[in-house]
Amino acid sequence: MSSIIHEFLKFLPQEAVITGEESLRVYECDALSAYRELPACVVLPETVEQIQEILRICHQAGVPVVARGAGTGLSGGALPVADGVVLSLAKLNRILEIDPDLRLARVQPGVRNLSVSDAAAAYGLFYAPDPSSQVACTIGGNIAENSGGVHCLKYGLTVHNVMGLKVITIAGELIQIGGEALDSAGYDLLALMTGSEGMLGVVVEATLKLLPRPVHQQMLLAAFASVEEAGNGVADIIAAGVIPAGLEMMDNPGVRAVEAYVHAGYPTDAAAILLCELDGVPEEVAVESKQVIEILKNAGATEVRLARNKQEGERFWAGRKAAFPAVGRIAADYYCMDGTIPRKHIARVLQRITELSEEYELGVVNVFHAGDGNLHPLILYDVAIPGELERAEEFGGRILETCVEVGGTITGEHGVGIEKINQMCVQFKTEELTQFHAVKEAFDPQGLLNPGKAVPTLRRCAEYGAMHVHGGKLPFPDLERF
Amino acid sequence: MSSIIHEFLKFLPQEAVITGEESLRVYECDALSAYRELPACVVLPETVEQIQEILRICHQAGVPVVARGAGTGLSGGALPVADGVVLSLAKLNRILEIDPDLRLARVQPGVRNLSVSDAAAAYGLFYAPDPSSQVACTIGGNIAENSGGVHCLKYGLTVHNVMGLKVITIAGELIQIGGEALDSAGYDLLALMTGSEGMLGVVVEATLKLLPRPVHQQMLLAAFASVEEAGNGVADIIAAGVIPAGLEMMDNPGVRAVEAYVHAGYPTDAAAILLCELDGVPEEVAVESKQVIEILKNAGATEVRLARNKQEGERFWAGRKAAFPAVGRIAADYYCMDGTIPRKHIARVLQRITELSEEYELGVVNVFHAGDGNLHPLILYDVAIPGELERAEEFGGRILETCVEVGGTITGEHGVGIEKINQMCVQFKTEELTQFHAVKEAFDPQGLLNPGKAVPTLRRCAEYGAMHVHGGKLPFPDLERF
Repeated sequence: MSSIIHEFLKFLPQEAVITGEESLRVYECDALSAYRELPACVVLPETVEQIQEILRICHQAGVPVVARGAGTGLSGGALPVADGVVLSLAKLNRILEIDPDLRLARVQPGVRNLSVSDAAAAYGLFYAPDPSSQVACTIGGNIAENSGGVHCLKYGLTVHNVMGLKVITIAGELIQIGGEALDSAGYDLLALMTGSEGMLGVVVEATLKLLPRPVHQQMLLAAFASVEEAGNGVADIIAAGVIPAGLEMMDNPGVRAVEAYVHAGYPTDAAAILLCELDGVPEEVAVESKQVIEILKNAGATEVRLARNKQEGERFWAGRKAAFPAVGRIAADYYCMDGTIPRKHIARVLQRITELSEEYELGVVNVFHAGDGNLHPLILYDVAIPGELERAEEFGGRILETCVEVGGTITGEHGVGIEKINQMCVQFKTEELTQFHAVKEAFDPQGLLNPGKAVPTLRRCAEYGAMHVHGGKLPFPDLERF
Repeated sequence: MSSIIHEFLKFLPQEAVITGEESLRVYECDALSAYRELPACVVLPETVEQIQEILRICHQAGVPVVARGAGTGLSGGALPVADGVVLSLAKLNRILEIDPDLRLARVQPGVRNLSVSDAAAAYGLFYAPDPSSQVACTIGGNIAENSGGVHCLKYGLTVHNVMGLKVITIAGELIQIGGEALDSAGYDLLALMTGSEGMLGVVVEATLKLLPRPVHQQMLLAAFASVEEAGNGVADIIAAGVIPAGLEMMDNPGVRAVEAYVHAGYPTDAAAILLCELDGVPEEVAVESKQVIEILKNAGATEVRLARNKQEGERFWAGRKAAFPAVGRIAADYYCMDGTIPRKHIARVLQRITELSEEYELGVVNVFHAGDGNLHPLILYDVAIPGELERAEEFGGRILETCVEVGGTITGEHGVGIEKINQMCVQFKTEELTQFHAVKEAFDPQGLLNPGKAVPTLRRCAEYGAMHVHGGKLPFPDLERF
């Protein structure tokens, strides 16, 4: 390692090569802080050429490299590897170009998500994916994890909003993927790279799609006496052909936690509430609002409120946006899960989560992107009570396995990282995992880029299958139903 | 080969294994009929298990396999390999399920594109990608070529409308990719498989997204005194944030050919016309129509017609839909090109096509999906006149290279196949082509699936570079501009 650091220092200034334990501590984890590991060193390059050189050196020496953005990831995707290098993209933080005619932004990976919309606002444009962490998280990290947000129901995940990438391979080669045109010749490496959790290459530039800011927005809030009716309301809206800009659901524990914290005016006696944002030209929004109110009433809503003005609409949202800190006030710790299910199974899966909550004797709050079936159960625990963290993790794993059971998937927008790697064994068969490994090998034959993340080894799956709590076999043998 | 045929006949009936030269003739080409090759045999399996067995046998024997749908492809993607097997998916033609709640269709690959919308119509739903050949072409072929159509501006290409795939690998293994949920864990093989031209696996089942049929549609026709103004009109509409369901452009030769054939009422003195379809709820369409009319007038339209009713709207479309046969009447033969460019360069590229038309002394008609910058120049030639076919092909190649030069790509919706394989050398650098080959190897290490298509060997590119008409070097050395 010391010879590698010596190599780095030939083209990087002293302060861009971090090695002291104290300084490395900052990089030992991302937002999944239950997992920590000290890397051997952290490098902070400023140019694409420096990144190429860093990767070339690591490639030749066979040293693992973990790329890192803002470290806000929730699945441990940026967890360092012991004796490995952390490649921070923090200094590549420039917006290179906003092209209002083509409605594109060309940015470096270390640019914060919200900065893109801020820069595009002058042209009446915005960048649609809006993860909760959008003030802090970076575009590079968003691409690595294929991030979503409250508006991805209508405007898509990151993969739907990236047009082109410049990527450095582990061998230090620059390749360009996609571009400014709708389609692209050759294999579609753009989607393959997006969401690949830093395991196939290092993104050094991205061309992002910008959208015109909606002319008009309308918020609605609906209360339900049962979670089932709320879930059906969601399915009915989508089935009617309405695509809201956002369609969020919160169960009673969530509503009460939020009300106690920000006084958003939510009905605390509701079993569940839905928040629905419609956007477009005013005439279209007016028609859709009427339609959605009728659908929600037919689905059994006990109350439907139409925000009378922008301020009231923002108050409706404020509660949703404060949900995580609100839950932080009622529990010592919480563990945020992230699975996606076909919408029609929302009520069934929430019922199962309630049962598991009793089984594990841990509270749970459900606050999630209902429109696209992306669940975020928050499991409440106290790390100071021995065994609670382990129980929370196992409970979380069971929730993800339930998602797979109903035809869903173990990730919505947070990625697999280290957190969900065991559940990959439940989601995929040996043949599919083998194909994933072959793809990895096509980009990184030595397995140096973010090793140990996202795709489990077959051996790990065999062990997980053997030790799994459900009696030595994987819980859902019938995975053919897709 | 005879021992392989013997193997096939163990589980396929005699009539499902075609070997006689007369019968093989039917399969010697697809819609790019300038290229022909007789395969050694054609197999017509009826079940997924038979396909697995066929691939296993070919894999073991090292025999190339070319999958084939309806053979309507325009880039020669289904051109057989001499001494290889053609795997026809024609008998896997069942719609397995329409799920109106999840708005999904589960279909076999041999299902015709239009049949999906026909089956979904009962639920008020449709399948959005609508290539011109939609009466005949199949979903499997659409997935292989990532097909588009007149409505892909608003509703996306095939890749944006496929949720899940069942794929058989060359080794005969069944893998499932994607599913019914918005996101999917692991590498995004779904987009990678879509548009991979039969080179990574054989699709045996697809889960497709269905959309609600638009409540209301409005057609507009605008005439322009110059191609440049029409091109600017297109850019202005999109820049204003309006996404039409379709936005087509036709130049004067196209307008005259169409008028003479179907009398659609097009203004034959216009240098170019635009056809614009708006859809949505009536209130939204009314607002957008007003907006688009104003934009087109500001862009210099000499005339803007709003279809007064459905019949008139259909007449506007009828001309566009008859454009290719109309051109067939004025020329002995025509060669349909397919490139995509950033919208803002439409006028510049059309000007270059006119110059090339003079250089090659061949007429050209431009009829294309202007909204997404997908050009379809039709080069007019006569195969009976020695040298004209070769000149048409070279002219076509130059058009594609112009697309690359302005930041576009050599394919919009027809794929690369055998037709554009030389232009791949212009579009991509050595490092990028090397990465494509590595991905291919991850799925098909022996290179048995549709060999020789889509991705050129580096040797081929070196030869193309050396022999290329522009003086021994590739025409656009500066490919870094993306």
